[in-house]
Amino acid sequence: MTAFSTDNQKNLMLFSGRAHPELAEAVAKELNVHVTPQTARDFANGETFVRFEESVRGSDAFVLQSFPAPLNQWVMEHLIMIDALKRGSAKRITSVLPFYPYARQDKKHRGREPISARLIADLLKTAGADRIITIDLHTDQIQGFFDGPVDHMHAQVQLAEHIRNNYDLSNITVVSPDAGRVKVAEKWANSLADAPMAFIHKTRDPLVPNQTVSNRVVGEVEGRTCILIDDMIDTGGTIAGAVKVLKEAGAGDVVIAATHGILSAPAAERLANCGAKEVVVTNTLPIDESKKFPTLTVLSIAPLLAQTIREVFENGSVTGLFNGNA
Amino acid sequence: MTAFSTDNQKNLMLFSGRAHPELAEAVAKELNVHVTPQTARDFANGETFVRFEESVRGSDAFVLQSFPAPLNQWVMEHLIMIDALKRGSAKRITSVLPFYPYARQDKKHRGREPISARLIADLLKTAGADRIITIDLHTDQIQGFFDGPVDHMHAQVQLAEHIRNNYDLSNITVVSPDAGRVKVAEKWANSLADAPMAFIHKTRDPLVPNQTVSNRVVGEVEGRTCILIDDMIDTGGTIAGAVKVLKEAGAGDVVIAATHGILSAPAAERLANCGAKEVVVTNTLPIDESKKFPTLTVLSIAPLLAQTIREVFENGSVTGLFNGNA
Amino acid sequence: MTAFSTDNQKNLMLFSGRAHPELAEAVAKELNVHVTPQTARDFANGETFVRFEESVRGSDAFVLQSFPAPLNQWVMEHLIMIDALKRGSAKRITSVLPFYPYARQDKKHRGREPISARLIADLLKTAGADRIITIDLHTDQIQGFFDGPVDHMHAQVQLAEHIRNNYDLSNITVVSPDAGRVKVAEKWANSLADAPMAFIHKTRDPLVPNQTVSNRVVGEVEGRTCILIDDMIDTGGTIAGAVKVLKEAGAGDVVIAATHGILSAPAAERLANCGAKEVVVTNTLPIDESKKFPTLTVLSIAPLLAQTIREVFENGSVTGLFNGNA
Amino acid sequence: MTAFSTDNQKNLMLFSGRAHPELAEAVAKELNVHVTPQTARDFANGETFVRFEESVRGSDAFVLQSFPAPLNQWVMEHLIMIDALKRGSAKRITSVLPFYPYARQDKKHRGREPISARLIADLLKTAGADRIITIDLHTDQIQGFFDGPVDHMHAQVQLAEHIRNNYDLSNITVVSPDAGRVKVAEKWANSLADAPMAFIHKTRDPLVPNQTVSNRVVGEVEGRTCILIDDMIDTGGTIAGAVKVLKEAGAGDVVIAATHGILSAPAAERLANCGAKEVVVTNTLPIDESKKFPTLTVLSIAPLLAQTIREVFENGSVTGLFNGNA
Amino acid sequence: MTAFSTDNQKNLMLFSGRAHPELAEAVAKELNVHVTPQTARDFANGETFVRFEESVRGSDAFVLQSFPAPLNQWVMEHLIMIDALKRGSAKRITSVLPFYPYARQDKKHRGREPISARLIADLLKTAGADRIITIDLHTDQIQGFFDGPVDHMHAQVQLAEHIRNNYDLSNITVVSPDAGRVKVAEKWANSLADAPMAFIHKTRDPLVPNQTVSNRVVGEVEGRTCILIDDMIDTGGTIAGAVKVLKEAGAGDVVIAATHGILSAPAAERLANCGAKEVVVTNTLPIDESKKFPTLTVLSIAPLLAQTIREVFENGSVTGLFNGNA
Amino acid sequence: MTAFSTDNQKNLMLFSGRAHPELAEAVAKELNVHVTPQTARDFANGETFVRFEESVRGSDAFVLQSFPAPLNQWVMEHLIMIDALKRGSAKRITSVLPFYPYARQDKKHRGREPISARLIADLLKTAGADRIITIDLHTDQIQGFFDGPVDHMHAQVQLAEHIRNNYDLSNITVVSPDAGRVKVAEKWANSLADAPMAFIHKTRDPLVPNQTVSNRVVGEVEGRTCILIDDMIDTGGTIAGAVKVLKEAGAGDVVIAATHGILSAPAAERLANCGAKEVVVTNTLPIDESKKFPTLTVLSIAPLLAQTIREVFENGSVTGLFNGNA
Repeated sequence: MTAFSTDNQKNLMLFSGRAHPELAEAVAKELNVHVTPQTARDFANGETFVRFEESVRGSDAFVLQSFPAPLNQWVMEHLIMIDALKRGSAKRITSVLPFYPYARQDKKHRGREPISARLIADLLKTAGADRIITIDLHTDQIQGFFDGPVDHMHAQVQLAEHIRNNYDLSNITVVSPDAGRVKVAEKWANSLADAPMAFIHKTRDPLVPNQTVSNRVVGEVEGRTCILIDDMIDTGGTIAGAVKVLKEAGAGDVVIAATHGILSAPAAERLANCGAKEVVVTNTLPIDESKKFPTLTVLSIAPLLAQTIREVFENGSVTGLFNGNA
Repeated sequence: MTAFSTDNQKNLMLFSGRAHPELAEAVAKELNVHVTPQTARDFANGETFVRFEESVRGSDAFVLQSFPAPLNQWVMEHLIMIDALKRGSAKRITSVLPFYPYARQDKKHRGREPISARLIADLLKTAGADRIITIDLHTDQIQGFFDGPVDHMHAQVQLAEHIRNNYDLSNITVVSPDAGRVKVAEKWANSLADAPMAFIHKTRDPLVPNQTVSNRVVGEVEGRTCILIDDMIDTGGTIAGAVKVLKEAGAGDVVIAATHGILSAPAAERLANCGAKEVVVTNTLPIDESKKFPTLTVLSIAPLLAQTIREVFENGSVTGLFNGNA
Repeated sequence: MTAFSTDNQKNLMLFSGRAHPELAEAVAKELNVHVTPQTARDFANGETFVRFEESVRGSDAFVLQSFPAPLNQWVMEHLIMIDALKRGSAKRITSVLPFYPYARQDKKHRGREPISARLIADLLKTAGADRIITIDLHTDQIQGFFDGPVDHMHAQVQLAEHIRNNYDLSNITVVSPDAGRVKVAEKWANSLADAPMAFIHKTRDPLVPNQTVSNRVVGEVEGRTCILIDDMIDTGGTIAGAVKVLKEAGAGDVVIAATHGILSAPAAERLANCGAKEVVVTNTLPIDESKKFPTLTVLSIAPLLAQTIREVFENGSVTGLFNGNA
Repeated sequence: MTAFSTDNQKNLMLFSGRAHPELAEAVAKELNVHVTPQTARDFANGETFVRFEESVRGSDAFVLQSFPAPLNQWVMEHLIMIDALKRGSAKRITSVLPFYPYARQDKKHRGREPISARLIADLLKTAGADRIITIDLHTDQIQGFFDGPVDHMHAQVQLAEHIRNNYDLSNITVVSPDAGRVKVAEKWANSLADAPMAFIHKTRDPLVPNQTVSNRVVGEVEGRTCILIDDMIDTGGTIAGAVKVLKEAGAGDVVIAATHGILSAPAAERLANCGAKEVVVTNTLPIDESKKFPTLTVLSIAPLLAQTIREVFENGSVTGLFNGNA
Repeated sequence: MTAFSTDNQKNLMLFSGRAHPELAEAVAKELNVHVTPQTARDFANGETFVRFEESVRGSDAFVLQSFPAPLNQWVMEHLIMIDALKRGSAKRITSVLPFYPYARQDKKHRGREPISARLIADLLKTAGADRIITIDLHTDQIQGFFDGPVDHMHAQVQLAEHIRNNYDLSNITVVSPDAGRVKVAEKWANSLADAPMAFIHKTRDPLVPNQTVSNRVVGEVEGRTCILIDDMIDTGGTIAGAVKVLKEAGAGDVVIAATHGILSAPAAERLANCGAKEVVVTNTLPIDESKKFPTLTVLSIAPLLAQTIREVFENGSVTGLFNGNA
Repeated sequence: MTAFSTDNQKNLMLFSGRAHPELAEAVAKELNVHVTPQTARDFANGETFVRFEESVRGSDAFVLQSFPAPLNQWVMEHLIMIDALKRGSAKRITSVLPFYPYARQDKKHRGREPISARLIADLLKTAGADRIITIDLHTDQIQGFFDGPVDHMHAQVQLAEHIRNNYDLSNITVVSPDAGRVKVAEKWANSLADAPMAFIHKTRDPLVPNQTVSNRVVGEVEGRTCILIDDMIDTGGTIAGAVKVLKEAGAGDVVIAATHGILSAPAAERLANCGAKEVVVTNTLPIDESKKFPTLTVLSIAPLLAQTIREVFENGSVTGLFNGNA
């Protein structure tokens, strides 16, 4: 006999960085697996070390990481975990990024700038990632930054369902907080009974971060329930300012909906006091107690992640999860 | 003597595909060089052949191609020219793309689609392009598709100057023909004395190309001169429909401004008859007589291209051409 | 349980560009599969769009494209389809090229030329092709242009069988139409009972395409049935000229045999009137009615392609199909 | 005229991350240039942003970064700066790393571990670094992790000169704190009048970081001045323990010499109280006041870095700086 | 039916270069497979040719090569075999290198030198190797030279067992022949009941190969059984000189243990006459009769290689073979 | 001052492997430089070591190697020299290969074979070669195996001039020794006053190397002076057999002309006794005394190599050297 043969099984393994262990546990529970045990620690000078406690050889590895502050720490940990999987002979490595880091740096706003979102894609590839699963990218074009398959999920489906279940759709207007999100707002409007739209026409000073100058409302909002949407809320300055502008323009209730609740200080305080009736986000990023406030609603993204991972593992159709829109 | 030395000069050479020779000639004239003579022809079965008539060894090569229909023909010709330059020992190869092909396919709109704009970037790299010069990308993120420097120029500066010189800015509104262009419209508004904005809220059926369903105008347009902007005009259906909607909403004069005048049939007829007072485009694409109509104004892009090429060649600052915004 | 496992099945999917759907259908029928349904269309400016109607995730994808005029159009469509498969998570992508495009540009004939056949190989790799299946390359060395497995099939087996079945081998001479094909003619001679050989010693003006100056016959052809062979027939000028030269040298019947019937105008007219008794080609390229003429015989390549695809899919031996010669 | 030519000048530009600006200033002063002005800041969620204030087009860019805690932060900043230089058309990018990050993770100590030092090399390459300048790598083999030129400098020359100037060489023994540094100790011994050697035979528990079990001294140390050498001092546990073991073995004065003074807490306390007569390090890493103690001597590495950068820029011989040993 | 499916089996195939067929046969026997039959020969000018006699399509290919003199010959043969496997559609290619060639050139000892060990890793990758299995690298860092999984096995386990079975551990000292091997000696000491250690402090003239100047013994060896260890023995000059130095220092029996017995002339003569009681090596390299001498013991490495190949094929844990230390 | 500038000079350095130092010296003399001094030696187990004695930083390096037996030795030495140049910061590395190794393995003659000529191109690229200069490739397509510029020179010009100067062109016939060289023979015929052609129709058993079965002459040779051409002569079996067949067919004088005189034993004996009037080759390979015989003429290739190197260095036109045919 010249060769010997064996059946070629594949087995799913789930790995998690240290940024958001609760999310990994929730995904694992949905998938009915355990998060693969590992040693992960930082040396005194900040160098990160990871070692897996079980053999990863031949596995279909899904590596989950979230990216709250200190974000660079978690990026490096994620790259190091992927390197360890590659060198440990995992068969296929899928980088699972509920929140894609540096997504806002997706172009050169001015000359002599980096395009860090592309850099992240290249670093993942270099470390050994074969594919990416991510949710609600800041811009859809980031899919094209990675040289390989990207499964781009949408939490908007869940968020919109929450709106439909809790608000009267007949009187709503979907509002984009700035010109760059109008396209996304249109998708929302489509999914909320073809609601009317509006946006805030503002000027952003490119030299000063996290500060914006909001002004005119474009579109009809007087007396209407405004669903103010965004992909992420960082310090909340823009979105809270948008609520103020809407209220001044005579809007009725304002509900804020966003996939990624970064909620850097002083977001909690701003959002709690801005006059919005409810703020709805998902847990793509960890939201600890210090970030919570009474009108905040957090939806779990774990079922969507688990379902996607399962479809990818079993070669089902991820597009099918979104009626052809992913 | 172990080695011998020589001064290291560099020399600029300009090459042009066959898609738009007038533009190349105009750029060459601005640069005070000749387009490098070449043999270019197609074999009977459609295979393209190119050979340069002068040595390209050691040159700083700028290869200009425009992309009208049949676009795939010109993409392949461009790649083949770059391959010939690489194999002919050009020192550096800059792909000059006044109109970036396949820019509209910059993301997967639905599952199982290509991202052809990224593919184009990779094909250019593979053929041998070291860098890209391009103008008014469909989305800025396409810069990040190329693994190397991209000098992204803006014809909007010229177009806006034309508007300022010919129209009363005090009564204008900048209008985006759809939700995806509102961000660009905002840049226009900023450059036109902080004009007010509006956009057309429409629904595009993703299964049928070149057809859109326009409907509500969001923003105030009644009695105002509307500057209806876009990055490109293909068959003109969307933009002509937008004029109709604006007129129905009580708009005054409507002026259309776009960088790329693709003007596929029946664009000329549609635009001539849509009620717009003027249609302003540049010659990033060739506009032959069949595409012209009385209200069409074509601005020459050659000075901008020539200036950019010169700055790149001489290691000047391209960013400086746009006050830091490129 | 830390991981869960599943059997690892693989499934063959067949895809086809729009250049030659009849061939794809014939291959699909041989394989007992359907060509995967897709949307493929061209935008008004010539940009090509493709979307698959079924999930391709995890598939062993075979993508068939033929390359008649307008050849560049079909090259780009093929690359775009491969990109869509890569991004749609196909497991393995095999580019099936019955006729390899740009095969004649396989070297720099003179300085400052491209090597487009190598460029094609690199573009395929860049788009995402893992491997290639092709038939009767213009030169065997093109196999080495691709950085991966190339299964190089030979239609000559079928063609030679046709000759053996229809002509008296005892009086034949195998003739190469030029010096570059003598090696191939020798293979033919070997497979036709070690027939004698001849070739046409001609001069080709490198500056003028599709024109040749035929002259002397080298070898004995007087009174013999000449099997005039080539890998492809484009406009037919060379081959028709060869028939004339052979006839002038006293040859008996002349039969032309070639794998690839490009048959660009005026090939049909030339071949019909050149005095050849029969012209035998395969359908690696579509041969529509306008290209047909009474003495033309077209053999189907579909069984060979289907058999090869099946062996590749099932990890059988492709070499075995040719007794070790592929 | 088909082309126009110009002299090809090159110009050196120096860039610095935010980890150790004093070192960059010192190097700039030696080179008689300014550090290129830039905007560098962190967004609220930890994302880093960098923009250069001057054109970098065509420059020979030297990008200096040091790597104290939080180290991952500085790694990402460095990669982002390199990406911005690449996209800003710098001609050549040299990553200047006085302390190479993750150098201790230069192999898999056990299975399923990363090799983070190789990962760092690959990340640098991916971001756009053409070459590396670094000092006293943890192991020389790390040079081979980068796919390009690495200029590996040695601060040991300066450190040894300090020893020669301040101690009586006739009674010294060079001591390695563990088995892995004996080779380096031998180089020291060679440069210190062929001094005798010793090392500490210890056991390191691979499961617990920063803790070691020191025991036997191998070699003669009784009554001798011990030069205890290492490449880096992190928390100082190993090295302070070594002093104790040496003292117990009857050693005379103990002087500690190391290139990289990481000096993570409680290193300052440990070293101040361990009984060593002097601790000599360089400023490859910033040493703020909290890390200083009376017996600490810090030598400036800036002259060596500046000299190396100059030689690299001017194509001089870096090897010549070390008499052929670099 | 759009697609058809099949079970995805995998089958192990073993290939062997011509350098050490006995080892391949022994490994094959352990695995219960045959070495795949092939044609391998050299043309008159030294070009090597290889062709496999069976289809390798879809196989999990393990390609074994040993590297005795003429080493470059075997490197090229190995690369050519990998190329043939890649082009023959093997699914996965593992380069099995019991002795890693050029391992001693793992860094630039001085300027303007190659790092040939890294070059070898890159050549293997380029030829088509997906992964490497190797034994007792000269330095562990060489693992990081390959961009992919490296399974690094340790013959030291077998060698140490041999020592334990044949010598009284209570009186032994583990000795490193030079400063660079002390770390390895420490691992030996750990596995031999925490034996004491010593090393030879010598000076190597970097300009003259294979010659060393041994001198002082550092550590206690008087009256003790010395286990003199190394990773490889080439001409035996260093190691034989070390025996002499140890004997002069009053050592008792000296036993030499090394993984790789290169044994270039005059190693056999030197080792036979140096005074060592026994020399233990493995057969990672062929040891023909001319190299043998009475005190030489050769352990077979085949069981370790076979076990590793089996674990890799079946996705078992290779780390498990070494209690977590590989 | 933010930056400082300097003129960018370039300097040519010539390097040579040990395979054919006379050729390197002759080229150096033509160029008026010295071959860069280096240390090159082989370790006892066959590993090769190279170190340059002068700084190569920033140089335009031309690395010459010839490839006689033991060919694999010289391939590895060449790769190692290129690696050392890359790591020593040479600016551009040109691999100068008068004889391209493994050129005959330029395709898979049968299944499961390597394409070693492509492998060589990839190994050169991996080691660090930016470009190749070579002479009379076995097939022109090998140019396309390298991903970069290949300057392909033709010694045929010199050889043909020798024929023109020494033989009466009015009675010659150019003869190809087999079907594969007829195309090359045609080029010869063109350059020798459009001489008539012939070739030997032979059968080569693919299972047995260096053996051929020659038989029929195709074409007129009776009473004519035959110029029997080939690209290389290895053991001389084919070519000597061809002389015999020509003589039997009534040929007059037979002159053999080939670029590459490998002349492996027993070529000298065969050629001396085969009846040829003269055998003309160049010194692309070393021809030591044992290979020489009275009718052998060796032309020096050094002037052509030197001229090509100079043109490449000075960005002149190499194509110009051959009137546009290279």
